[in-house]
Amino acid sequence: MSHLTEFKSVIFMEKTSTDAFPSIIYSSEKQETVCIFGTGDFGRSLAFKMLQCNYSIVFGSRNPQKSSLLPHGAEIFSYSEAAQKSDIIIIAVHREHYDFLKELTEVLKGKILVDISNNLKINQYPESNAEYLAHLVPGAHIVKAFNTISAWALQSGTLDASRQVFVCGNDSHAKQRVMDIVRTLGLTPLDQGSLMAAKEIENYPLQLFPMWKFPFYLSAILCVFFFFYCVIRDIIYPYVNSKKDITFRLAISIPNRIFPIAALTLLALVYLPGVIAAILQLYRGTKYRRFPDWLDHWMLCRKQLGLVALGFAFLHVLYTLVIPIRYYVRWTLKNRTITQATAKTQDLFSTSTAWLSDSYVALGILGFFLFVLLGITSLPSVSNMVNWREFRFVQSKLGYLTLILCTAHTLVYGGKRFLSPASLIWYLPSAYVIALIIPCTVLVIKFILILPCIDKTLTRIRQGWERNSKPTSDGQYLKQSSIHLDSQL
Amino acid sequence: MSHLTEFKSVIFMEKTSTDAFPSIIYSSEKQETVCIFGTGDFGRSLAFKMLQCNYSIVFGSRNPQKSSLLPHGAEIFSYSEAAQKSDIIIIAVHREHYDFLKELTEVLKGKILVDISNNLKINQYPESNAEYLAHLVPGAHIVKAFNTISAWALQSGTLDASRQVFVCGNDSHAKQRVMDIVRTLGLTPLDQGSLMAAKEIENYPLQLFPMWKFPFYLSAILCVFFFFYCVIRDIIYPYVNSKKDITFRLAISIPNRIFPIAALTLLALVYLPGVIAAILQLYRGTKYRRFPDWLDHWMLCRKQLGLVALGFAFLHVLYTLVIPIRYYVRWTLKNRTITQATAKTQDLFSTSTAWLSDSYVALGILGFFLFVLLGITSLPSVSNMVNWREFRFVQSKLGYLTLILCTAHTLVYGGKRFLSPASLIWYLPSAYVIALIIPCTVLVIKFILILPCIDKTLTRIRQGWERNSKPTSDGQYLKQSSIHLDSQL
Amino acid sequence: MSHLTEFKSVIFMEKTSTDAFPSIIYSSEKQETVCIFGTGDFGRSLAFKMLQCNYSIVFGSRNPQKSSLLPHGAEIFSYSEAAQKSDIIIIAVHREHYDFLKELTEVLKGKILVDISNNLKINQYPESNAEYLAHLVPGAHIVKAFNTISAWALQSGTLDASRQVFVCGNDSHAKQRVMDIVRTLGLTPLDQGSLMAAKEIENYPLQLFPMWKFPFYLSAILCVFFFFYCVIRDIIYPYVNSKKDITFRLAISIPNRIFPIAALTLLALVYLPGVIAAILQLYRGTKYRRFPDWLDHWMLCRKQLGLVALGFAFLHVLYTLVIPIRYYVRWTLKNRTITQATAKTQDLFSTSTAWLSDSYVALGILGFFLFVLLGITSLPSVSNMVNWREFRFVQSKLGYLTLILCTAHTLVYGGKRFLSPASLIWYLPSAYVIALIIPCTVLVIKFILILPCIDKTLTRIRQGWERNSKPTSDGQYLKQSSIHLDSQL
Repeated sequence: MSHLTEFKSVIFMEKTSTDAFPSIIYSSEKQETVCIFGTGDFGRSLAFKMLQCNYSIVFGSRNPQKSSLLPHGAEIFSYSEAAQKSDIIIIAVHREHYDFLKELTEVLKGKILVDISNNLKINQYPESNAEYLAHLVPGAHIVKAFNTISAWALQSGTLDASRQVFVCGNDSHAKQRVMDIVRTLGLTPLDQGSLMAAKEIENYPLQLFPMWKFPFYLSAILCVFFFFYCVIRDIIYPYVNSKKDITFRLAISIPNRIFPIAALTLLALVYLPGVIAAILQLYRGTKYRRFPDWLDHWMLCRKQLGLVALGFAFLHVLYTLVIPIRYYVRWTLKNRTITQATAKTQDLFSTSTAWLSDSYVALGILGFFLFVLLGITSLPSVSNMVNWREFRFVQSKLGYLTLILCTAHTLVYGGKRFLSPASLIWYLPSAYVIALIIPCTVLVIKFILILPCIDKTLTRIRQGWERNSKPTSDGQYLKQSSIHLDSQL
Repeated sequence: MSHLTEFKSVIFMEKTSTDAFPSIIYSSEKQETVCIFGTGDFGRSLAFKMLQCNYSIVFGSRNPQKSSLLPHGAEIFSYSEAAQKSDIIIIAVHREHYDFLKELTEVLKGKILVDISNNLKINQYPESNAEYLAHLVPGAHIVKAFNTISAWALQSGTLDASRQVFVCGNDSHAKQRVMDIVRTLGLTPLDQGSLMAAKEIENYPLQLFPMWKFPFYLSAILCVFFFFYCVIRDIIYPYVNSKKDITFRLAISIPNRIFPIAALTLLALVYLPGVIAAILQLYRGTKYRRFPDWLDHWMLCRKQLGLVALGFAFLHVLYTLVIPIRYYVRWTLKNRTITQATAKTQDLFSTSTAWLSDSYVALGILGFFLFVLLGITSLPSVSNMVNWREFRFVQSKLGYLTLILCTAHTLVYGGKRFLSPASLIWYLPSAYVIALIIPCTVLVIKFILILPCIDKTLTRIRQGWERNSKPTSDGQYLKQSSIHLDSQL
Repeated sequence: MSHLTEFKSVIFMEKTSTDAFPSIIYSSEKQETVCIFGTGDFGRSLAFKMLQCNYSIVFGSRNPQKSSLLPHGAEIFSYSEAAQKSDIIIIAVHREHYDFLKELTEVLKGKILVDISNNLKINQYPESNAEYLAHLVPGAHIVKAFNTISAWALQSGTLDASRQVFVCGNDSHAKQRVMDIVRTLGLTPLDQGSLMAAKEIENYPLQLFPMWKFPFYLSAILCVFFFFYCVIRDIIYPYVNSKKDITFRLAISIPNRIFPIAALTLLALVYLPGVIAAILQLYRGTKYRRFPDWLDHWMLCRKQLGLVALGFAFLHVLYTLVIPIRYYVRWTLKNRTITQATAKTQDLFSTSTAWLSDSYVALGILGFFLFVLLGITSLPSVSNMVNWREFRFVQSKLGYLTLILCTAHTLVYGGKRFLSPASLIWYLPSAYVIALIIPCTVLVIKFILILPCIDKTLTRIRQGWERNSKPTSDGQYLKQSSIHLDSQL
């Protein structure tokens, strides 16, 4: 309940908790005593916070001497003395120094040891720190917790990102007691199951958007390529040909060519692995064979690809909407008008141009609208509210509709110029023509795949049927029902 | 913890789990043995996944013969043999074939039976499959789980939509053990209480946006009606009258008339049931009588109505912002300027037109801004963060402010033309005039309802007072306090 | 599982639950008997709902006489008689009338008392109602629950905001039983730990956006100040000087000056407390001293400040994009063109103006894009998905990049006019010049703070090092690791 605890007063370093909350009299019933091994910064921060919540704290240390750094109210003892005073011992010591715990095996027997350590690198050790600890002190109940919390968040309790405390352990009673402490401290415990989860929990705080790396680099490459492509066609060519300096186009015109291309290409790349997977399954005649690694990885980051594409589409919309505000556009419009007015000529109105212009814009708007809908549906809290059937409907049906609309938007944008030789510059077609290759390919293959004859085979394969196998399962067993069956989006 | 498990390697069909994770040595402590009745696709997928998480799997089958389809590492026995090897038995068999379980009553006594079945239609059977199972095997502990998960999601673990596993059952210990398995598989168990919830859990994956149907059809009808209305006024009339072909207006101009009308009407329809309910309560003099079914249903889908309205408003904003980019608009502007320049005349600047134009636009922007705020507040994760008082403040106060601003936006848009006979075409008023009927009605009734004398009576009724009843509750009992009291929005 | 329960039929006041759900036969197993003390509106609403879910209800009352108001199926007894019929007693009585419970101490021994009361003011009593109840009836197990639920929500079950039931209590078994009831009623119980949390739970429904107050008032003051500033410069001055009536500027032009200023200033104020905190820590040479209260409070509402700033930025974008649609703008453009066409003169194209105009717009778009990204990341469901390192990356790195882009946008907007004496009006500089003061200050200080020499000291301080203390912690103890260490954003 993050919103409740936000209003808990931040920690009073120089005061005891009873001073800080003089009004809480009935509630000041003493909580249990907790022992902390290690007097480093994180151990002290944890002690501060726990003292504030009415826990009694004893520190265990190699040199049990009072220090001004220790929070007021905590006591300090030798390791074994401290351990005897509490059932729960928090190990605020680096993994490399866990060895001393081996000598305490006897006194730690049956106690709850809370491993709060982190590593410096992902998968630094073959086994997680918590599992290593369980190995060192076999008689104790090991619980992994608190490693995703920062000391500062403990003290201030402000940032939503730091509220969640992942907890795992093999002894459910021990885990429950640690989760109670987490909750009392105003944090949100999340039960992650057995100690097997410790490795993931230890890797978790070290990650920096791992699923976003591939989409990020891919879109960076796309942008750089199309940037140079457009610079050659739109800036260098006019300069070479007619010595015109139109470098100011770098600020808006060129980006507004790159962004829609990147958006459309990435959107198509969201749906490409799905059709590749379908082709593979048709070719192999079974779904019980693993896809190649690159395809698996690609399919895993489709959501991220889609969101990056949405970002580019959003930028494209903004860049397009500011067009009439730009000095260059206003200047051009004014001067053309003056020239015509001076010459007393008027353009004739072309209904077909009006149709092309309006439907190109309308297709773009509708495509963007559906794209935003897809983006909203991929918000975790929204996608948790929809069931599998609804999710597939949105992500697959609406997704393909978005792709169709955006492709049509680009095709109509080309309009009469599309593929006309006159628009070649130095044998280079317009950038948007290149951008259409992948989306059109995806749409054509998808269209073939949903032809009834092919779709029927594919559905059977996905329900567990295999081309080269005699049927063993008699009808009574649960197949992929129509609900369970997903079309791999 | 969906973000952690996303990085679990996808299942290796041809490998055993120890090959897949060679580094996990400490954590490979064997989990318990689980029995699966049925070797269909879903049972096999579940077995694959559980083997990967170090469970031992025994299949129970009518024909217990080894099959190449079965995952490596699983054993297969007859039903009763398999059941004896495990406390937990997953029933991966269609409901129509549950009968054979009756004969196993003795061996299943005290065991945990996990019902994972789904139906083909909502409310297909009078009682849920899980309750039917409980009826067949009275001595077993029935737990409903896994039915919302797709086999594909089990294998890849990618899609957020499929992470949640609803679990229900009457025996809390049995439920807890199944939830532990769910968690170990990297999924998120959600405790739904007793087996009474099974029916809902079984219906859940079959639904396709049930709350969105009414808003969807209503807005479709609105759009179609106003489409033909606008086509008659804006395209057929000019064609009949002056033979002008302006069909290109179908792409942008006509939608941009329909969308704001749909948005405003739907927004008003969000607040209409609230005022109808208030009138009903005032008329009846009590809140302890049920509203008619249509009103109940209407009130239940107000959020969806509002979000559809927001969608239309968003489209209206985009369609409006592209106006200056349109070929038709640019052509008209240029030609008028040339005509005037040739004639050497200039329009006089009209301050009142400037006021009308600017305030109409400003009201629209502010209305849209508040509308977006309302939309954000209705995101599940945001609405979970606000309390009842805050939610009412946003949805009721800000909601009515939005309605007022959008209605005013439309009124000022009409400006001097509003209700002028000159704007009638074939006796048809402009579409926006029709669009104003419902919003203005709602606002006028709401204004009457908040007059002090009426509001006081309404508040008393909502606090439990009844006009035709002698007071029984003496003051000491909890009424609707000011916090609990909601104004039905 | 809010989406499941939404489809539960709303309560049938005149029917028993078996009529309402004739199809549920297997599931109608009787739930336990629950006693409710008090026959006020909330007690009755709760009883209706619980009867619907197959609980048996007995009311306890001072005057145990049948009333037509009581829901059909409930019985009514004297307090002590009613209490004997159930383990769980819900106290639907105002706190001021709790005294009568003292006389029932004997019969309430070992029972579960559920305190559902609310207060009229935040912190109305020194201790929470639930703790007061625990004090009055020492032998009973007190559980706090249901106080955040409205009676209306209980009956209709529609609104997400009212689904969450915060539960706390010292006896975990008693708490579990109450949470089971909550779940059976279709609501979501959230365990808040021990009875110490009751005070917060009771304050919770009384709050009205407490964290938003400071940002709201601050932005109101900013807006009012800059409104008068701009009115003086842009409306009064032209009127005094040249008798021009340009009051129509109040609708769009003036707001579109105020909103970007408010957005930029508030965004800078999000990052100002961080640099102040860093300076304080450098000056004091320790992190173990509390920041002044005002700084603490400021840091706690940075998220809200940022979101208000985003709101202003969003309005600024909309107000800017409608510029070409405005009558005033179109009129000016047309008349200038006509004037020039009549005079047969043309402006020369200025490449530097094109550069300035385009890059000013491009910087604004990119800044707004990042700003929206920051806003999306602060959605609770998104920020729960990112770890501490990722959150810091987004909020700190991307946040400062946003600030830099928006500041640059404003600087380039000024362009050649920036700080030129000609733009002074009555000695007042343009409003945007004033708006640049805080952002530039923050950026300069931040730039100094990340110089290697200063950054190194700051990092050591934040890892627990103190300038005026002898080192006590030897290396083995957990310091703020690189992951835990946050830069206070």
